[in-house]
Amino acid sequence: MDLKSYLGRHAALVDKALDALLPASDTLPKSLHEAMRYSMFAGGKRIRPILALAACEAVGGNPESALPVACALEMIHTYSLIHDDLPAMDDDDFRRGRPTSHKVFGEATAILAGDALLTQAFVLLSSPSACEHIAPEVSLRILHTIARCSGSMGMVGGQVVDMESEGKQVDFPVLEYIHTRKTGALILASIQCGGLVGGADTEAMKVLTAYAEAAGLAFQIADDILDIVGEQAELGKDVGSDQARGKVTYPALLGMAVARERSQELKERAIDALAPLGGAAEPLKNIARYIVDRSS
Amino acid sequence: MDLKSYLGRHAALVDKALDALLPASDTLPKSLHEAMRYSMFAGGKRIRPILALAACEAVGGNPESALPVACALEMIHTYSLIHDDLPAMDDDDFRRGRPTSHKVFGEATAILAGDALLTQAFVLLSSPSACEHIAPEVSLRILHTIARCSGSMGMVGGQVVDMESEGKQVDFPVLEYIHTRKTGALILASIQCGGLVGGADTEAMKVLTAYAEAAGLAFQIADDILDIVGEQAELGKDVGSDQARGKVTYPALLGMAVARERSQELKERAIDALAPLGGAAEPLKNIARYIVDRSS
Repeated sequence: MDLKSYLGRHAALVDKALDALLPASDTLPKSLHEAMRYSMFAGGKRIRPILALAACEAVGGNPESALPVACALEMIHTYSLIHDDLPAMDDDDFRRGRPTSHKVFGEATAILAGDALLTQAFVLLSSPSACEHIAPEVSLRILHTIARCSGSMGMVGGQVVDMESEGKQVDFPVLEYIHTRKTGALILASIQCGGLVGGADTEAMKVLTAYAEAAGLAFQIADDILDIVGEQAELGKDVGSDQARGKVTYPALLGMAVARERSQELKERAIDALAPLGGAAEPLKNIARYIVDRSS
Repeated sequence: MDLKSYLGRHAALVDKALDALLPASDTLPKSLHEAMRYSMFAGGKRIRPILALAACEAVGGNPESALPVACALEMIHTYSLIHDDLPAMDDDDFRRGRPTSHKVFGEATAILAGDALLTQAFVLLSSPSACEHIAPEVSLRILHTIARCSGSMGMVGGQVVDMESEGKQVDFPVLEYIHTRKTGALILASIQCGGLVGGADTEAMKVLTAYAEAAGLAFQIADDILDIVGEQAELGKDVGSDQARGKVTYPALLGMAVARERSQELKERAIDALAPLGGAAEPLKNIARYIVDRSS
């Protein structure tokens, strides 16, 4: 398969669905809906939604049926970026080369645009029209998975510990705590919920979870490596920004060689985990290869 | 019925349930869970959860079965207060006589505590254990109602327009836009979702909605009046703070006498709407009387 074209095709599907599922920019209050759309269409690679679609496909589902869930995941990811960029948090003026939400719309609107995107994700996940092809019990399970992975013991919890660890000497268990939650949890939710839409049984859910846990960590290590050796265009943020901010990273803690080795191992483990799903899991395998290998 | 004792008894039920349904303060990350609990147990009157319990009772349900939904509503209300108090928004240092979240825990943790409380509400509303007595279709409908009322076309939208209107000449339609969304929407959701837990049919839902729309607006006008004539202890914020901030209020726009008359009319309309539900709606009626009459 041609992964580049797969990613492009699926990102376009997600963009189109997001456009349909977000309130229009001329819906009142306009400033808020403009701010929501500004950050939603800021050049994100749509990795989480594509993982959800690929996971749905891997268990034999129609990937398009996972689009509303995929869009909700991207809304939550985007809200987290808007809030992370705020002056009180990472204080970033640019993301992917564009001014961040609070620079364009002001801090108050940026906070509220983040709040509204998080809420809109749950509007969507509980929408009788958007999710009409998903059984209510399954919708609730998806919703619960996404909410748990996004909350105080998932993504938000990881962000808190990351913030509290800045400039401090941090050991390996804390680094893993941060990464399994701050980025890993929503990746796990994306893959699990794609599987749930696709009708995965208990065995298939175990397979997807094993893939997600290994791949999520591999992606994070690859990101840490790219932060040191990458091109700004590829990274979407300043090269070296983690280090400048005193954030702990895998290469900083383990050395670059060991970090590279570990991300390769995790990639292999993720790919091997998918064996029981056969050819339908080819996209998931290729995504793991692509993300890890662009850093090596 | 003795309303004071009813309110006290139900607030205690809500407090106990909230304590059980929020992550413990020694659960990692501790600072986040402490911040969430600090604001959740800051002396709120629990009006929204009590309305949910009373609405459940009014349609013949067991009010205790609505406790998880009631707690989720209070989490959303509390998150909105934490974010409203931030320096970028209303910049309030005190609420109900206690320092606000960002004064105690710092701005970043306050933003994240708000995010986590909003998310925790949806964890709870989709929880198979907390909501085991609610049918999945009903849970989804409750979730959808609460998410819509809290989002960009509900509470968050009202907050945006309120913020944008500060210090400006505002007309009556804008004032109603702000209030039906900023405070009215979550009150409407509380009453509707209490009814849904209690098994309300279409007719009973119409009755509850009519009550909620009239009562929600009556409460807001009463609050505006109290902001001018009230005692700080009763109000939970500085007397005259709306005016000082250039916020538009009903008494400012209509004059005090007309505002008082309008809140009394709306109270009567809310009470009359409940007639078809008979004696079981007595608590809802008394709550409307209590809230409006404390301002007159």
